[in-house]
Amino acid sequence: SGLVHIKNPHLDLMEEDVLYHLDLGTKTHNLPAMFGDIKFVCVGGSPNRMRAFAQFMHRELGLAGDGQDLADICAGTDRFAMYRAGPVLSISHGMGIPSISIMLHELIKLLHHAKCRDVTIIRIGTSGGLGIEAGSVVITDMAVDSSFKPQFEQVVLDDVVVRSTELDRDLVEELLACSKEISDFPTLIGHTMCTYDFYEGQGRLDGALCSFSSEKKLEYLKRAYDSGVRNIEMESTAFAALCGLCGLRGECPCACLA
Amino acid sequence: SGLVHIKNPHLDLMEEDVLYHLDLGTKTHNLPAMFGDIKFVCVGGSPNRMRAFAQFMHRELGLAGDGQDLADICAGTDRFAMYRAGPVLSISHGMGIPSISIMLHELIKLLHHAKCRDVTIIRIGTSGGLGIEAGSVVITDMAVDSSFKPQFEQVVLDDVVVRSTELDRDLVEELLACSKEISDFPTLIGHTMCTYDFYEGQGRLDGALCSFSSEKKLEYLKRAYDSGVRNIEMESTAFAALCGLCGLRGECPCACLA
Repeated sequence: SGLVHIKNPHLDLMEEDVLYHLDLGTKTHNLPAMFGDIKFVCVGGSPNRMRAFAQFMHRELGLAGDGQDLADICAGTDRFAMYRAGPVLSISHGMGIPSISIMLHELIKLLHHAKCRDVTIIRIGTSGGLGIEAGSVVITDMAVDSSFKPQFEQVVLDDVVVRSTELDRDLVEELLACSKEISDFPTLIGHTMCTYDFYEGQGRLDGALCSFSSEKKLEYLKRAYDSGVRNIEMESTAFAALCGLCGLRGECPCACLA
Repeated sequence: SGLVHIKNPHLDLMEEDVLYHLDLGTKTHNLPAMFGDIKFVCVGGSPNRMRAFAQFMHRELGLAGDGQDLADICAGTDRFAMYRAGPVLSISHGMGIPSISIMLHELIKLLHHAKCRDVTIIRIGTSGGLGIEAGSVVITDMAVDSSFKPQFEQVVLDDVVVRSTELDRDLVEELLACSKEISDFPTLIGHTMCTYDFYEGQGRLDGALCSFSSEKKLEYLKRAYDSGVRNIEMESTAFAALCGLCGLRGECPCACLA
């Protein structure tokens, strides 16, 4: 049907659904009228960058006006920022798995309430590259955890549930085909490693704490590279797991800073 | 000495330390001049709320002007926001352990570079209450994970290191004494549970996914209550672990929304 899958039997029994962190709700907003025609959702960490992206899309789509005054749809909260340009929604998700998970739960319910169909969601965040040229874009064929396993461990109450982090293969190929029309930056397909920590978790030597040597760091990153990892960020496994379970076509083609 | 402890032998060998997510650095900013007299750091999730808190502190401290135009010290980035009012720094940390960890690593290095002494750090965020009146403040005697254990599991490269989440007992008593002078809201001491997920991890029935019954949720929350948990949030274990390791007196007296 192209609709998202909500896997929560309680939701239909609720009189009202408040999307707390988006400052939207089923009684306060006409979600089908506001969002029913959305076909693409682009997400990234920084609110300013997601506003700039919406302005860019506004121009690319040739919409009326210069797009400089796009309103933040979530203006009533500063947890996340949301802009739209035609059928494209642009939303910030902050940094890390807990933050993006909150946004995705509420976004997926928003798409459900709005009866959106055939939505594609793309995370266009930044990441650290591994053995590749700075400025490259890695299209993720598989999101892996810090042990290079393609899985996401979700704590549900006090149980640990292991979820698949498989991404849409057709979308990977479509994005790679798109990249061939743009010669500005190298694009490749690779695994993306997702960590819970930016400093100790990604082998950085410049955190407030660092208990490992430069050699130990390089040995770890080499093992990551040898397993197919080409970039490292902090959201992809949760993103892939939630998109997969809810039937959203998702991808995270991230630009690599270094 | 009252200085923070940096446990990273690499840091002294670096020519420059860039605090990426704060848009500050040792070569671009005179950190001792900017921050050397800071004695208190207050942190919370929302940037707007941390600005409002700095404005409140500005008035409470009787500083010149109305404090309405306090500048964001991290204005060059939208990852975090930082304001100061006299000896008090007010910083946002976003939502969840990965986000607050990034901020804390860079804040602790900032306090180190600025040669700050005897700094107290207080997380004044919001949390969900457990079996207590809405509007109560829980002063955390112990931060526990989703299994009610007073520990934080930090992934370092691909090893898991278990860290203590003990908080400063004297500070707990000092804050409780302060609360006795204010009759506006109930204050109590209790354990604070820290989760990686807002919906499935905290027993909410209104996420995009929910695989447990209302009974299972209540049974879990009752076990949490019986173990001493009085509120639930998403940062305290990492906060307690990092403060403890770096010799920062820290507390997280969170207000409870419901």
